[in-house]
Amino acid sequence: MMKIHGGNIYQNKEMLDFSANINPLGMPDAVRRAILDAAGNCVHYPDPHCTALTQCISGFEQIPPAQIVCGNGAADMIYRISHAFRPKHALICAPTFSEYAFALREAGCSVAEYALDPAANFQLDEGFLSAISDETDIVFLCTPNNPTGQLISPELLKKIADQCLEKHALLISDECFLRFTESPAQYSLRSYWNENCVILNAFTKLYAMPGLRLGYAVCGNELLAEKIRCTGQYWSVSVPAQAAGIAALRETEWIRKTVSYLKAERMFLEELLPAGGVTVYPGSANFMLLKTEPEFGAKMRERRILVRSCSDFHGLSSAHFRIAVRTHDENRMLLAAVREVYG
Amino acid sequence: MMKIHGGNIYQNKEMLDFSANINPLGMPDAVRRAILDAAGNCVHYPDPHCTALTQCISGFEQIPPAQIVCGNGAADMIYRISHAFRPKHALICAPTFSEYAFALREAGCSVAEYALDPAANFQLDEGFLSAISDETDIVFLCTPNNPTGQLISPELLKKIADQCLEKHALLISDECFLRFTESPAQYSLRSYWNENCVILNAFTKLYAMPGLRLGYAVCGNELLAEKIRCTGQYWSVSVPAQAAGIAALRETEWIRKTVSYLKAERMFLEELLPAGGVTVYPGSANFMLLKTEPEFGAKMRERRILVRSCSDFHGLSSAHFRIAVRTHDENRMLLAAVREVYG
Repeated sequence: MMKIHGGNIYQNKEMLDFSANINPLGMPDAVRRAILDAAGNCVHYPDPHCTALTQCISGFEQIPPAQIVCGNGAADMIYRISHAFRPKHALICAPTFSEYAFALREAGCSVAEYALDPAANFQLDEGFLSAISDETDIVFLCTPNNPTGQLISPELLKKIADQCLEKHALLISDECFLRFTESPAQYSLRSYWNENCVILNAFTKLYAMPGLRLGYAVCGNELLAEKIRCTGQYWSVSVPAQAAGIAALRETEWIRKTVSYLKAERMFLEELLPAGGVTVYPGSANFMLLKTEPEFGAKMRERRILVRSCSDFHGLSSAHFRIAVRTHDENRMLLAAVREVYG
Repeated sequence: MMKIHGGNIYQNKEMLDFSANINPLGMPDAVRRAILDAAGNCVHYPDPHCTALTQCISGFEQIPPAQIVCGNGAADMIYRISHAFRPKHALICAPTFSEYAFALREAGCSVAEYALDPAANFQLDEGFLSAISDETDIVFLCTPNNPTGQLISPELLKKIADQCLEKHALLISDECFLRFTESPAQYSLRSYWNENCVILNAFTKLYAMPGLRLGYAVCGNELLAEKIRCTGQYWSVSVPAQAAGIAALRETEWIRKTVSYLKAERMFLEELLPAGGVTVYPGSANFMLLKTEPEFGAKMRERRILVRSCSDFHGLSSAHFRIAVRTHDENRMLLAAVREVYG
């Protein structure tokens, strides 16, 4: 089973990487300093309980520390959740981030996919509610969804949370890209959640530190958190990652700047990118889904630009590509390359 | 389920830590420099395949890269192996490192324990062979064993490997502490292994970088490696850990110095530590198992010394403690504290 994800710059050296969805403003200076300062402390085991970091997340999220679990990236949390609760039947969307299905199947769980409608720009609809059955043990949502960039409407999210509670299904909302958008509070499951809910978040993308691996889960109650915490190895989060996370959470101004920058750049790309043979799906994330021709990837690669083919996503084809929204100069280079090929 | 391990300096500030088994010579300068140099590269995802690091391990271990899998510490490898092969029946020793049983049970596996005999200094004996039955799917060994410090005799190791092959049981040999000893090649499973074998190793202890998390598995064939590689998340090893690992493997002189230093310090402690009420078990690792009174831990703690209570190890009691072999000055401080209490 060959996994494919964006951001592999190691097999694509000296290319402009539009395949990974990282904050174009980069890593805050304070985070870089925290990593450097932590180097000497790597002679000690990490704090297995991430005590200081969890305390900071608690303040940031306004939730008690006992409901928070940190992990080696949000991906680690996806696997630990899948192993912790040993679900038998899961429901996810298609297309969506592929690690949900990988993790669930690794834990011996069958995975049902709810097909998102391309004609509706892959917007999640009310039909999803009837797909949550008495048999369903766990539901994974992603908002904004990767790779479509679509947010889930607050009304539907509330109905899904209620339906999951009624059906005794765990509801996991992956909100790793939500703080890149303009109204995260409005679209977060937090506004509608219950004791059966878990929200996933990552430092990876927002603070441009994917190389360090740091993510966390915020749980609807302490028992859920304790179960996830006791799953997997004792020391999952490294010393530099814990230090970087603490520094990152102080950077509230960085988030504001990022959201405003991305809004402008997203509009810029949405307006100018569509060309003969290149369609842009509307969305709200720091990345965009395109429909074009299968050769788009190779043609961009010839111009030293790396994009994410979406051919491995269920529900998409080799004609779909995902691109990150990057800095203005980089976005102009992408535009120039697209114009050169597609006019 | 409360896990207990050594090395938690976060709940024991400003204490001399004899509870974690880390190289007393510390982290090589080149490793520290590699971590610092890698800080800026954390804006990229790590290489999911650890290509450059695996190449270096391949040279160091003299084994093809396709038989090597890297992970977020050796503990990560223990969980990935347990989930990858979904064993139903496992055999481990008691006492031994507790994460084998935790990982196996998490994967839904029943765990049989082979009791090591205190009267034989917990030396593994031939009775273990008959404990490997037709039902056994997986066997975890640890050599030198944590927390007893006992090596497995080469003759017995060969018989275990042959027996596991005959019974179609996977044999995992955790050799994370083996390179601290004087004749690692002689005692490694590598001399007797087959296609059903996996050897675990860590950078954590030998290069004093437990805060970074880096371990690896060397597999008896490529299929085993591929199965472990495809289990768990895509980006398990951080950018700084990969860089530090590459730098560490060049430090062959560091290992030679470490082994010679530890030999002398171990002899020093073995000779002088036994006191009224404190017995030292013979062993070969960079740590030692003691039998004393349950109050030993509290009495050392009063003297600002942290030791590892072994009361949570099956087969040991609250009267057993594990201490690391540290620097000469630190070992003298431990000795002085023990003498003060026990004469």
